[in-house]
Amino acid sequence: MNTPAFSLIMFGGTGDLAMRKLLPALYQSYLDDGFKPTSFVMCAARSDYSHETYRAWMNDSVKQHVKERFDEAKWQAFLLHIEYFRLDATNVESYLPLKQRVESNDNERVFYLATSPSIFEPICTGLAAHGLNVNARVVVEKPLGHDLKSCQEINDVIGRVFEEKQIYRIDHYLGKESVQNLMALRFGNSFFEPIWRRERIANVQITISEELGIEKRGDFYDETGALRDMVQNHLLQLLCIVAMDPPASMDADAVRDAKLAVLRSLKPMTQDEVLSNVVRGQYKAGTVGGKDAPAFLDEAGIAPNSATETYVAIKAEINNWRFAGVPFYLRTGKRMPKRMAEIVVEFKPVAYELLGKTPQGSNRLVIELQPEESMRMYCMAKRPGNTMRLGPVHLDMDSDDFFTERRMDGYERLLLDAIHGNLALFVRRDEQEQAWRWVEPIMNTWQDQSVAPKLYTAGTWGPAAANALIARDGFNWHEEL
Amino acid sequence: MNTPAFSLIMFGGTGDLAMRKLLPALYQSYLDDGFKPTSFVMCAARSDYSHETYRAWMNDSVKQHVKERFDEAKWQAFLLHIEYFRLDATNVESYLPLKQRVESNDNERVFYLATSPSIFEPICTGLAAHGLNVNARVVVEKPLGHDLKSCQEINDVIGRVFEEKQIYRIDHYLGKESVQNLMALRFGNSFFEPIWRRERIANVQITISEELGIEKRGDFYDETGALRDMVQNHLLQLLCIVAMDPPASMDADAVRDAKLAVLRSLKPMTQDEVLSNVVRGQYKAGTVGGKDAPAFLDEAGIAPNSATETYVAIKAEINNWRFAGVPFYLRTGKRMPKRMAEIVVEFKPVAYELLGKTPQGSNRLVIELQPEESMRMYCMAKRPGNTMRLGPVHLDMDSDDFFTERRMDGYERLLLDAIHGNLALFVRRDEQEQAWRWVEPIMNTWQDQSVAPKLYTAGTWGPAAANALIARDGFNWHEEL
Repeated sequence: MNTPAFSLIMFGGTGDLAMRKLLPALYQSYLDDGFKPTSFVMCAARSDYSHETYRAWMNDSVKQHVKERFDEAKWQAFLLHIEYFRLDATNVESYLPLKQRVESNDNERVFYLATSPSIFEPICTGLAAHGLNVNARVVVEKPLGHDLKSCQEINDVIGRVFEEKQIYRIDHYLGKESVQNLMALRFGNSFFEPIWRRERIANVQITISEELGIEKRGDFYDETGALRDMVQNHLLQLLCIVAMDPPASMDADAVRDAKLAVLRSLKPMTQDEVLSNVVRGQYKAGTVGGKDAPAFLDEAGIAPNSATETYVAIKAEINNWRFAGVPFYLRTGKRMPKRMAEIVVEFKPVAYELLGKTPQGSNRLVIELQPEESMRMYCMAKRPGNTMRLGPVHLDMDSDDFFTERRMDGYERLLLDAIHGNLALFVRRDEQEQAWRWVEPIMNTWQDQSVAPKLYTAGTWGPAAANALIARDGFNWHEEL
Repeated sequence: MNTPAFSLIMFGGTGDLAMRKLLPALYQSYLDDGFKPTSFVMCAARSDYSHETYRAWMNDSVKQHVKERFDEAKWQAFLLHIEYFRLDATNVESYLPLKQRVESNDNERVFYLATSPSIFEPICTGLAAHGLNVNARVVVEKPLGHDLKSCQEINDVIGRVFEEKQIYRIDHYLGKESVQNLMALRFGNSFFEPIWRRERIANVQITISEELGIEKRGDFYDETGALRDMVQNHLLQLLCIVAMDPPASMDADAVRDAKLAVLRSLKPMTQDEVLSNVVRGQYKAGTVGGKDAPAFLDEAGIAPNSATETYVAIKAEINNWRFAGVPFYLRTGKRMPKRMAEIVVEFKPVAYELLGKTPQGSNRLVIELQPEESMRMYCMAKRPGNTMRLGPVHLDMDSDDFFTERRMDGYERLLLDAIHGNLALFVRRDEQEQAWRWVEPIMNTWQDQSVAPKLYTAGTWGPAAANALIARDGFNWHEEL
């Protein structure tokens, strides 16, 4: 049993995040490894539930997410570690039972704020009033603000009560095995090092696409849009992992310093550059996965003339010696043909075409993050026959073929990291704020110049302008052979 | 139909090479592409066969080698292109009908000397007497001599009648798709270039192993041994393909100049270096593929106290800027656990072990030449789980998954090249003689110092000394995971 004894207090214990992600992740971890006897998860929320009612509700939700691994006997044992706690977050007195429960042992203490940031302030105040901010960790998750200023305010609220080293800002993409594996490949193998630089790399493409639309989150999404929801956090974090210099150690701050250096190197965009290097898109009605999908403007909760983007494509540039001049194309969208996340590193063509013309992009490393996690290296090989004609091939690696260890979900990994006190895969305040600093000119330009999103049909890969963005530089978005 | 009209005259038309390799290769090519109406193969030998007898004999032999592709109707049509020609090679008069047949059209003219080199001289004289050496090509194959001097003598015999650009010296390893593919990989992809040098490569291993013993070739083999039979030609040619600088073009002489430069860079060995860097081995009785195998000394045709080697392992070094200090380990043997040929490029470890110790040789590119042709890249990836632990994985490429073109046998490829007049995959005189020059000190040291071969049990990977040879440098022979 490797997981230390822990006390995990989840504020927002009745919310979607708790039910769909955190509790299933905890149960998965329990199945592997069990919990120490004193470990407990306290799910705090406003509603007046009994432990039993809450557990019954959990039962339905977790079963659905854990699927074939579910084990009834272990589930019953797991439930003994789960407590429901009714809390009025704004009432300092109501934290007293929490204090007593938490201070009944020496467990690792983790507060998970799975709530709207609007109640971070009373929660932090309530915890601090009872000294619970000492010797504890706090986990928070997006959305943390809608711009630099609001993000700073939220960070200030938490920062008044917790030190930076106590604060675990989750970006669940960083918890993905394949993102970790990208670091393993880069820093655990010698042959990637000499090619991981501007002399050898033509461009990098990072895509996160969803089939889903906005589901029931219309109100939230209309205020947010793809740039804030996906680019500022997930896409920029992936960009950092691809582009960072090797850190001196895997210590949290060494890794985060290396990522911060990338964010600081991102070339800031002028208004003109935003207009030419960023494509804002919004889906109109179409067909996704064989089903009719309504236009964004016809979804519930969306303003009739909303200019909110459901798609963004960006050409980013990095002003440093490793990557100067190498375009990083980022794109994300809803209502795309399929759900996937991938990183494509396209290498430059051969210096001299000794064996004849090779097609553009014939040397690519493709790291698929979801739905499957795999690695594929595209290269040219000789076609059989009595002339030297080349054809494209690829080398494949699926780590399931090699490792029997279970692959954790991002949340599970990150929850365990928080319990272990391992900050490396959490986003530091300066990183997060720097990401906002880079993204803001895009938001501002859109607003100042009333940039209307370009429409794309639901079920397609976004507006034509996104293809033009990359084609202009002589490249194209990677498509599987 | 791409094959030009040709007249192929095979001296030694009743020999093993003709029956087992050349005629089946021609038939394979015929199945693909047909022959132009005037094309013919004239099989010349001493015996008094009728066309019909000869064709019937061919029938049995070729069927056996072509297997499931055999097609009776096409076979009958193919036979119409085959003629038997009774020739007394030493009698100039007897070439007259040959002259008439050959001069009856403008076909590409190829003389294939599939005979012992001892009758090259009368054949060349006979051809030249009738002017048949003009505007023709001549194909020859190992064994071309047993040392530099005898090789030069043979080359002189041919060279008196044919110009160097008319002479096609076959090394059938160069005809293998996978050897061609190694050039395609190196020169058709950008990402191998920066790692293909001493800064990145720890060592190179080239292995050709056979399960077979000496079969019925005892007399020949006892005079020859593995060094002459395999190292001087095949292994050194493979080494050249791995180590050569990119040529300026794929023209025959550009490629051969690049290979010659490698051969000239091979560090010559002193007697002391031969004793420490070369392992001479000979098999004793054992078990191969589940069957008892006798000792070499008990095989038919072997002298009772023969010191002939059936195994050689060599540490070679290349004195140039690209590969100085990178050991090239070569090995070949009979009665090994399996038949295979592979090239292993082992990369240096990471500069700094950020992610912990990686095992020696965790980055390797393995190119399998036979029995299958494939490419495999070994690297380290992250093991699933909540710590950064690495484990070995590999990326695989089997070109059959990508290309539908039929894969030609080495002989077929090279025969077609000779018919097309493409010299690139044939060995030039200077290359061949330079290879002998490098190999001779090994032969001489063994003779001068009466170096007895180290015994190894048939069915094992050679004498223990071969493992010590490489272990001394901190490496080990590649084994599949």
